[in-house]
Amino acid sequence: MAPSSIRITGARITPIAFADPPLLNTVGVHEPYALRAIVQLDTDAGLVGLGETYADQAHLARLHAATDAIIGLDVFALNVIRAAIADRLQGDTRAVGTAGMITTASAVDQVLSPFEVACLDVQGQATGRPVSDLLGGAVRDAVPFSAYLFYKWAGHPGREPDVFGEALDPDGIVAQAKRIVDEYGFTAIKLKGGVFPPEEEMAAIEALHTAFPNHPLRIDPNAAWTPQTAVKVASGLAGILEYLEDPTPGLDGMAEVAAQAPMPLATNMCVVAFDQLKPAVAKDAVRVVLSDHHYWGGLQRSRLLAGICETFGLGLSMHSNSHLGISLAAMVHLAAATPNLTYACDTHWPWKTEDVIKPGVLNFVDGSVKVPTTPGLGVEIDDDALAALHEQYIHCGIRDRDDTGYMQRVDPNYRLLSPRW
Amino acid sequence: MAPSSIRITGARITPIAFADPPLLNTVGVHEPYALRAIVQLDTDAGLVGLGETYADQAHLARLHAATDAIIGLDVFALNVIRAAIADRLQGDTRAVGTAGMITTASAVDQVLSPFEVACLDVQGQATGRPVSDLLGGAVRDAVPFSAYLFYKWAGHPGREPDVFGEALDPDGIVAQAKRIVDEYGFTAIKLKGGVFPPEEEMAAIEALHTAFPNHPLRIDPNAAWTPQTAVKVASGLAGILEYLEDPTPGLDGMAEVAAQAPMPLATNMCVVAFDQLKPAVAKDAVRVVLSDHHYWGGLQRSRLLAGICETFGLGLSMHSNSHLGISLAAMVHLAAATPNLTYACDTHWPWKTEDVIKPGVLNFVDGSVKVPTTPGLGVEIDDDALAALHEQYIHCGIRDRDDTGYMQRVDPNYRLLSPRW
Repeated sequence: MAPSSIRITGARITPIAFADPPLLNTVGVHEPYALRAIVQLDTDAGLVGLGETYADQAHLARLHAATDAIIGLDVFALNVIRAAIADRLQGDTRAVGTAGMITTASAVDQVLSPFEVACLDVQGQATGRPVSDLLGGAVRDAVPFSAYLFYKWAGHPGREPDVFGEALDPDGIVAQAKRIVDEYGFTAIKLKGGVFPPEEEMAAIEALHTAFPNHPLRIDPNAAWTPQTAVKVASGLAGILEYLEDPTPGLDGMAEVAAQAPMPLATNMCVVAFDQLKPAVAKDAVRVVLSDHHYWGGLQRSRLLAGICETFGLGLSMHSNSHLGISLAAMVHLAAATPNLTYACDTHWPWKTEDVIKPGVLNFVDGSVKVPTTPGLGVEIDDDALAALHEQYIHCGIRDRDDTGYMQRVDPNYRLLSPRW
Repeated sequence: MAPSSIRITGARITPIAFADPPLLNTVGVHEPYALRAIVQLDTDAGLVGLGETYADQAHLARLHAATDAIIGLDVFALNVIRAAIADRLQGDTRAVGTAGMITTASAVDQVLSPFEVACLDVQGQATGRPVSDLLGGAVRDAVPFSAYLFYKWAGHPGREPDVFGEALDPDGIVAQAKRIVDEYGFTAIKLKGGVFPPEEEMAAIEALHTAFPNHPLRIDPNAAWTPQTAVKVASGLAGILEYLEDPTPGLDGMAEVAAQAPMPLATNMCVVAFDQLKPAVAKDAVRVVLSDHHYWGGLQRSRLLAGICETFGLGLSMHSNSHLGISLAAMVHLAAATPNLTYACDTHWPWKTEDVIKPGVLNFVDGSVKVPTTPGLGVEIDDDALAALHEQYIHCGIRDRDDTGYMQRVDPNYRLLSPRW
């Protein structure tokens, strides 16, 4: 039997930077380093829970404030922990960390997330149970992910080409897909779009369809298109796309496209917080919601989102930002315990070459990650790796994710536009 | 640390009958005995989990079928347990046990409920945690309940008057309220209506308002009124009712009344299953949902209902049928861990004079029940009491709840009508 209380004594919050290739999107390009904050939640039972989240400066300040607010609370007191964080952040509500693409998420849920995951990690360690068991139990042994393709430069400007190669046209995208599918075994493919004119990106999807006729395909232009353009693309890609993700900005625009598109519309931009679900349902704006525990308030609230999607007839998929192994472990436990998560989840995993966890636990076989069955999240910090990536953070100079600013330093004529076409 | 698996080895399902006074409602009158089934879930860890549910014959058969389907499963595998039960009950979908008043609930969720509660009881015992901790943690130390008033006869026909006395007019109802509020300290009052013509019941509410000017008041005629009648009653009780519960049948009728009533409408008749939430929200038919873990699929799914209510701007209260201590314990843990359950919960508790649990744990102070803090539900079976109430079941002759049939045996002219006025 576990101790009858396990109180939080503090949290070590370590900003880290890990090498990231120049992945292009509609707001710019990934900087040479992606930032994350690693949360090590300390308890009076000597158990340490892990969480991973954004590391923009405003977010780091909130993480410290939140730590202060939850010291002394029990790791099972998740309702009280959320209330304490909400109380501490009052009035401080702007979501951060996602390059301006997920702007209306709840700051409280963003801040709660890594602490909630860390609490579940401790709960699992204390009770001898994998986190999936604390979420209703795994319904699958392994969680399928999608191949997440990006247009990209050969390397960061002024640096050597990276190992991933250039991809700026259909041939480049197909070559990238082949490499990544060969290596990981993914059975679904997503292309980050919004980078080139829609016709070029449609050609890339068509080329992928030719090369991978049995892989469900998705494209996500991050709201780069007008509703008119989106309808045209949707109609051109009828029968090829599994779903069309965020073709256009806003619920009204999405509803307009949804009424005419032959495939379901998905979103991780216009439904990113609980208060957006009621209007989204009323407008019938989307058919698939991409969950993401990093801004939906952790794993329990992501289960709530899943239940809402099931209840209101919405499909459920999973979104990813650049992340490391703690996040992947959390994603895998959540997805394993979510019966209606029937789409392959997104992950940036193949694009990273560094991590903070000890290797060996999370491996891709046939595009899926086996669900850890050891207590808690099942991953452990590699102290040396954490220290090295923290050093990298200190020296890299990046303090807030800024895909647009980086692009503008490379191309002074670059302008932020949504919709762009 | 708890064992890494705790497998279900079987369940003892004991139908019991406990003495129930002749409480009147719009479909008839409570029979001399109320039926319940007590579930004792056995596990290979030697821990026994408790659940309590309906005991109509069709439901008992389903409970046995469900037991068979979940033997060998882990008590944390709640997703798999629900799927196994759903699979076993395929095609057998009619809800039972509620005297024809909650007819469209999910049979799967009705059957799942006592097993899920029992699994959480075992989880709590195994991990040293009260069930509320497994639901996100208590946000209140004690859970407020409402005084649940009934029109009633002095006693069952042909028997001695019972200890509760007659209540067939405003004076009788006020006297009943005084006795029950004196004894339990309730701070909210609900009247079961639909028994007498609406004017008489309005007079009862007005008399209660005079006698208890600071107590929130509710009336629940169980859909006995036409929308027109309901609007008239609502308008007549403006400023007096906290909410008006199920004045009229069906979502469309409720929506019609809701558009004109000055107070919120509540329901435990037209929204009793997850598939009714989307149309209810679309029609704006109700403002408050009365949850009930006995037909919403247990405590975790009742939390989902709570989250849906919060997300879609609905208030949340809690419904009760005649029940015993295992159910009250489950209701208290759930309510304690549900931040947006802001209304005092219903309970039939004051009307019962027998139970199957050892006394001492669940007591009313100032209308509230203190949340148990011991592992699991915190209540224990009294084996002798269980055996005695099972004997009573065997001899009482009642096998399916039938308020209407009982009333017709007393009054051959009684007819079932909805709406009645």
